[in-house]
Amino acid sequence: MPHPRPAPLLASRLTKIEPFHVMRILADAQALEAAGHDVIHLEVGEPDFPTPPPIIDAGIRALAEHKTFYTGACGLPQLRAAIAGFYVSRFGLQIDPARIIVTPGASGALQLILALLVGRDDEVLLADPGYPCNRHLVSLFEGQPVNVPCGPETRYQLTAPLLEAHWSPRTVAALVASPANPTGTLLELPELKALADAANRHGGNLIVDEIYQGLVYGRPHETVLSVTDDVFVVNSFSKFFQMTGWRLGWLVAPEWAVADLEKLAQNIFLAPPTPSQHAALAAFEPATLAILETRRQELQTRRDALAAGLVELGFELSAVGDGAFYLWADARRFTTDAVQFAEQLLHEEAVAVTPGVDFGQAETMLRFAYTQTQPRIEEALARISRFISQH
Amino acid sequence: MPHPRPAPLLASRLTKIEPFHVMRILADAQALEAAGHDVIHLEVGEPDFPTPPPIIDAGIRALAEHKTFYTGACGLPQLRAAIAGFYVSRFGLQIDPARIIVTPGASGALQLILALLVGRDDEVLLADPGYPCNRHLVSLFEGQPVNVPCGPETRYQLTAPLLEAHWSPRTVAALVASPANPTGTLLELPELKALADAANRHGGNLIVDEIYQGLVYGRPHETVLSVTDDVFVVNSFSKFFQMTGWRLGWLVAPEWAVADLEKLAQNIFLAPPTPSQHAALAAFEPATLAILETRRQELQTRRDALAAGLVELGFELSAVGDGAFYLWADARRFTTDAVQFAEQLLHEEAVAVTPGVDFGQAETMLRFAYTQTQPRIEEALARISRFISQH
Repeated sequence: MPHPRPAPLLASRLTKIEPFHVMRILADAQALEAAGHDVIHLEVGEPDFPTPPPIIDAGIRALAEHKTFYTGACGLPQLRAAIAGFYVSRFGLQIDPARIIVTPGASGALQLILALLVGRDDEVLLADPGYPCNRHLVSLFEGQPVNVPCGPETRYQLTAPLLEAHWSPRTVAALVASPANPTGTLLELPELKALADAANRHGGNLIVDEIYQGLVYGRPHETVLSVTDDVFVVNSFSKFFQMTGWRLGWLVAPEWAVADLEKLAQNIFLAPPTPSQHAALAAFEPATLAILETRRQELQTRRDALAAGLVELGFELSAVGDGAFYLWADARRFTTDAVQFAEQLLHEEAVAVTPGVDFGQAETMLRFAYTQTQPRIEEALARISRFISQH
Repeated sequence: MPHPRPAPLLASRLTKIEPFHVMRILADAQALEAAGHDVIHLEVGEPDFPTPPPIIDAGIRALAEHKTFYTGACGLPQLRAAIAGFYVSRFGLQIDPARIIVTPGASGALQLILALLVGRDDEVLLADPGYPCNRHLVSLFEGQPVNVPCGPETRYQLTAPLLEAHWSPRTVAALVASPANPTGTLLELPELKALADAANRHGGNLIVDEIYQGLVYGRPHETVLSVTDDVFVVNSFSKFFQMTGWRLGWLVAPEWAVADLEKLAQNIFLAPPTPSQHAALAAFEPATLAILETRRQELQTRRDALAAGLVELGFELSAVGDGAFYLWADARRFTTDAVQFAEQLLHEEAVAVTPGVDFGQAETMLRFAYTQTQPRIEEALARISRFISQH
């Protein structure tokens, strides 16, 4: 039915927020599955593991005890203390729990930080390729995302020299991710320290997305907080702790920013979900951490198998991701248009992958997520091999 | 420790977002309780009833079945269908489930709508008095909240004539609430229809906050959707369904707005909490609705007792709220400064109430929430009586 009046004007930010190309892949994949095809999902940015049983059990106990009322805007004090305890036990770091704000997902954390720092036309530097929601959230607050092309020579990461080259009088912050999505690559602690120092020298701020923290392979777990307190850190219970649908994350802020962030939290979302917070108290228990370590090792095995298989097929992995659960592969030996490649691969061999254009200027790149079991990954590699040989 | 560099510039919106005065009352109340005092909380905007058992049970089942993965950005299809079913059974209305978007609380719903409609310096009309987060969210998106003074002659509500008087070329929307916070008053359906028509005639939009829908006394449940589809409706599982900490709400949008709202939801919060969504499926079951009806009657009894008691003490209730769980009372017979009155009442008699200034230009007003049992309300009235007689 046509709208009975002229379509109302929408906020101009809507034109800057693009839909994800992968949504079309997802819709097609679902249609194929509905038609009886066996689709292998290497496009999904969500761990395939269910939430560890101790966390589930804690959630059930919380509900049975009617722990369903609002908490404070910054979260349960005992959860903020537990997160601080995790920084002590894992990294040997003393973080004042008052600097830790529990949020509805990492999305909520990033929203608070950007609402605090980003005014009209203020610029935020981001690595291209990068997670698209991050730049869209900058636009949401009327800021200007500045996508800095980052190639294999910096493992697709923003570095201090790149920051210096792109910092302008309007720049207020740089946002990096370690491990990163879509590449799985990490920044080294000295690189993070140099980035924070450079941003601070300019009177700006560094924001570090650590939502894949803990999902690292063949190297130690790290946090930027080991090298500076003058940084905003975004973290999450979704990925390493495998609590995606619970919508729970946290941020660590410099002390000077806490009062304003709390004011924003009160207004933007009132409080993070209560049952999720009680469940998350079990995330740091030894039994949970043991389960998570087994799963981390399983992801490493998958990563190694997928990386080796893709290279053998002729994909280029210029910087093998040491973290998260993604590989960022160049398909230029097979195509000049990875969107078309991904669509054909799905329709001919029922393997779903994410085209690189969702993450930046990356016409021949594909993101492979190893969020499937190893036999499924082997099967996907066999199908991709057949697909390539027939084109 | 002093900050080692000049404090970074913050986004200018921070200056427009005020902290709540009630936070000081809350902090003082907690300190009094810690010191052993028996504080009666008439300041809390949260039902004192626990979430109904059928909803708790559904939440526990969902966790036991590992329903903890992401849902789609707009929520579980079966929950969107269940909400549509509720509009049929309660209001006789057919709403396409595609127009219903499940959100992380009503906060998430309002955020989506304002991000869609409000650009830089665009004006949004709001009733003064009104819920402060609403105007702060307008500032969050760089819009300009326009607080329209609304007195007892319109039951503190925005009406079509007031809308016409304050609409400017920069106005894009008007936001009303029925029942309203802090007053508990309602808009009649013809008034809502006139407001929507007036906004639409100007090429703008009406947003109706119906988060207290169902909490009405001595009158039928209503929704603006009975009189127009060209409206944005914000609703919540928090208040009537008593699921505050679960952080779950929904919006109903005109068909033309749905695709853009979904794009925003994907970027702003990915998805609402999954366990909460599964639990909410039980919210519309007959067993749950029977519990909620009993509790609604209990609230009505409390409202009647509190209203009669306050009037007897000399407070003026120019418009007794027919909904929500608030009374908006003028204390001008006792004070010219309700903030001071509230602080003294707390410290001398351990009764916590919210000063009116949190909600607008209301120097002698107080908000009383009847979210305590009737014996506690009677006790509070006795203490207030003693307090007044001693001043």
